[in-house]
Amino acid sequence: MPYELFYWPGIQGRGEFVRLALEEAGAPYLDVARGRGPGRGVEAMTALMGAAPLAPFAPPFLRDGAVVVSHVANILAWLGPRLGLAPKDEALRLYAHGLQLTITDFVAEVHDTHHPIATDLYYEDQKPEAKERAKAFLDHRVPKYFGYFERALAANPAGPAHAVGDALTTVDLSLFQLWAGMAYAFPRAFADAPQRWPHVAALAAVVEKRPNVARYLASDRRLPFNESGIFRYYPELDQAAAKDRG
Amino acid sequence: MPYELFYWPGIQGRGEFVRLALEEAGAPYLDVARGRGPGRGVEAMTALMGAAPLAPFAPPFLRDGAVVVSHVANILAWLGPRLGLAPKDEALRLYAHGLQLTITDFVAEVHDTHHPIATDLYYEDQKPEAKERAKAFLDHRVPKYFGYFERALAANPAGPAHAVGDALTTVDLSLFQLWAGMAYAFPRAFADAPQRWPHVAALAAVVEKRPNVARYLASDRRLPFNESGIFRYYPELDQAAAKDRG
Repeated sequence: MPYELFYWPGIQGRGEFVRLALEEAGAPYLDVARGRGPGRGVEAMTALMGAAPLAPFAPPFLRDGAVVVSHVANILAWLGPRLGLAPKDEALRLYAHGLQLTITDFVAEVHDTHHPIATDLYYEDQKPEAKERAKAFLDHRVPKYFGYFERALAANPAGPAHAVGDALTTVDLSLFQLWAGMAYAFPRAFADAPQRWPHVAALAAVVEKRPNVARYLASDRRLPFNESGIFRYYPELDQAAAKDRG
Repeated sequence: MPYELFYWPGIQGRGEFVRLALEEAGAPYLDVARGRGPGRGVEAMTALMGAAPLAPFAPPFLRDGAVVVSHVANILAWLGPRLGLAPKDEALRLYAHGLQLTITDFVAEVHDTHHPIATDLYYEDQKPEAKERAKAFLDHRVPKYFGYFERALAANPAGPAHAVGDALTTVDLSLFQLWAGMAYAFPRAFADAPQRWPHVAALAAVVEKRPNVARYLASDRRLPFNESGIFRYYPELDQAAAKDRG
């Protein structure tokens, strides 16, 4: 039975971290809310959110037979071992989950660059605050997070080709997605990112060229980045590269 | 060997969700950064954060013998089964982790009510934005989250006394902490919370009276809420109760 992924259609959003894992592994899955017909579409998704007990709070969530798993990091912790994308060692698996949760936090901060005041308001209604928050994000938070990921790669005893252990994990796939998203949303500010965080840049480039990932990215299953998702390109929120900001 | 918890001294913060689990279970633990002497204090904590490989991004993190676990939900997923505070059933355990991650998201939103623009700035430097964000949080986000927790309790086949299954879990302890924190930070807006979310209110009241929790809350190990933590009482961010806001 294929995995069933439930996520908003029309955006990469948080669902994309799950899609990348399923696609890399070549696992059969249904992107339920993007489908049509009985048991498909957004209605099928919202029906499951209303289904007590064990209802998830929000998409994305995954149904795998009898279990429903919600939250990206929880889904990836479930899928990782099943898709061959998780370390076998327990200490490494705990570490990978910690990295995945750090990625979760980063994604929330990316979202809040365009929604610093209220999720329920439009971006246009919180633009001055978004400019302030985006500047603080690019000045302080991006270096904090990417500096950490860079150190994590550099410190990997198995080498900087992977975040955890000596093989590809969901963390590597998620780091690629962060990298691609930042390059889309903040092309000027992120222009010198490869010089600042070379290990992360190299990892993202390698992931992008993996056969299954490349095939996916070229397919119509990969939605383009757009201004309804997490990573949005609003030129007025972008900044000059760090080296030009002094 | 006692568990070693690493978290900032002087605040409840995110560390408190871990402390409550350890205290309820009567588990031996060291609150390392609050201690003095060799291997204790904030220096011991920051040293471990710099210790490559497997370094955590930020406190809290827990050391249990050879493993280091970071992020509250990850720590509680590790401790839960060991402390008898997790469901045995796999589907329920996945659901509990999802609830714990929803609590994590809520905590981040509480933090951002007083820091909507930048974590690196003082509250005083982002007060007008904080007022706007706190209002949106109280109007829309609090009902969304607590409505969900209320439904989760109501839908529990084992009854509304617990969030998951028929026994106390880390989720119940964390819901108590959310409840106590909201009552501290937003006493006016949260005044009618027991009428709005009666199952959560009842759960929080029961948790508070559990012998080990009550003993802990009365001890000097329980730091008071204060204006350096996650839940801060700034009267200007509080609002009238929902029924009086129309």
